[in-house]
Amino acid sequence: MNPYFEITDQKCIDALLDSVEYGTLALSYQDKPYSVPLNFVRIDRSIFFHGALQNKKMKLLAQNPKVSFSVVRSYALIPSFFSSNDALACPATQFFASVSINGIAKVIEDRDMKAKVLEALMQKLQPQGGYKPLSDEAYTKALKATAVVEIQPSTTRCKFKFGQHLSKERFRMILKHLEERNEPKDKETIDMMKSYYI
Amino acid sequence: MNPYFEITDQKCIDALLDSVEYGTLALSYQDKPYSVPLNFVRIDRSIFFHGALQNKKMKLLAQNPKVSFSVVRSYALIPSFFSSNDALACPATQFFASVSINGIAKVIEDRDMKAKVLEALMQKLQPQGGYKPLSDEAYTKALKATAVVEIQPSTTRCKFKFGQHLSKERFRMILKHLEERNEPKDKETIDMMKSYYI
Repeated sequence: MNPYFEITDQKCIDALLDSVEYGTLALSYQDKPYSVPLNFVRIDRSIFFHGALQNKKMKLLAQNPKVSFSVVRSYALIPSFFSSNDALACPATQFFASVSINGIAKVIEDRDMKAKVLEALMQKLQPQGGYKPLSDEAYTKALKATAVVEIQPSTTRCKFKFGQHLSKERFRMILKHLEERNEPKDKETIDMMKSYYI
Repeated sequence: MNPYFEITDQKCIDALLDSVEYGTLALSYQDKPYSVPLNFVRIDRSIFFHGALQNKKMKLLAQNPKVSFSVVRSYALIPSFFSSNDALACPATQFFASVSINGIAKVIEDRDMKAKVLEALMQKLQPQGGYKPLSDEAYTKALKATAVVEIQPSTTRCKFKFGQHLSKERFRMILKHLEERNEPKDKETIDMMKSYYI
């Protein structure tokens, strides 16, 4: 990875993971990859997801617990002419923040831990509440019928691509264009550009 | 996959692939999965992406060309109380449309084909134009320095989850809540729900 883009500050990585609703889980069986998007929640350094007890990913995981999990938050598309006047397509890009985790998946069996994870998932995706806490007896059957999986990371790599590698001139040119265009993602893209340019 | 959610109409699948800016490529080496998000373009049945000639994914692909590629378009989060009055968390979900492709990756060597792919990528992500066509002589060096990869699908599975499996009563309850909430993704979620409920 271009060292300009690498993010190692755990607070930035956690904030990104907590702001994104879903990631893509990649598994491998007999050297054939399989990928599936899913909602997830981070607790400390681990990623947790849930699902049916018996489905393709659970069967594959039972045979090979090595996983790759990646998350992206996409920002503005940057047309080629935002950073260059030579009319070439090459500078066209998209700014983004991503996290790529390699690790081992572990099925959670403990009832209380399952409830804790699902409570955290609900607090992430339904912060307005409106449901009985997952520790309630009412969930006994549902918890038994639900698989909860923890991904314990061995490596975590985070990439923020917001023009950190560009000359001041090209960087300012993009900022000016984004300010003028003012589409939905442009404001937050400008904020990220300003935060990470050295 | 729940048969309610499976989409086989190629026009719907193509429209989804063409509306999404990036997907996640999953590779495997010695049964260890690796995943990376990337911008892509569809041409006919194939998926194409580009990148540096020498990087981790190109090295892994050279050793194992089997890939999984997945794309998601996320729609509204559906709080548990949108479809149930029993105050349980279980019905909470997120509606989405996804495509999962298994196939073989093939590095494109032909200059004209590389130019055609990159032109299609530009037309997808920079439809406003403002650059010399990729067939121009000016790109000779850049094309040589860029890897272009085709994913030839062996299987393509598409899942639209928009409450097709719900009773009429619960389905209508969600529609009513989405209409009342009226957040950015709610209108397009309602449209998809109405299009795919039988």
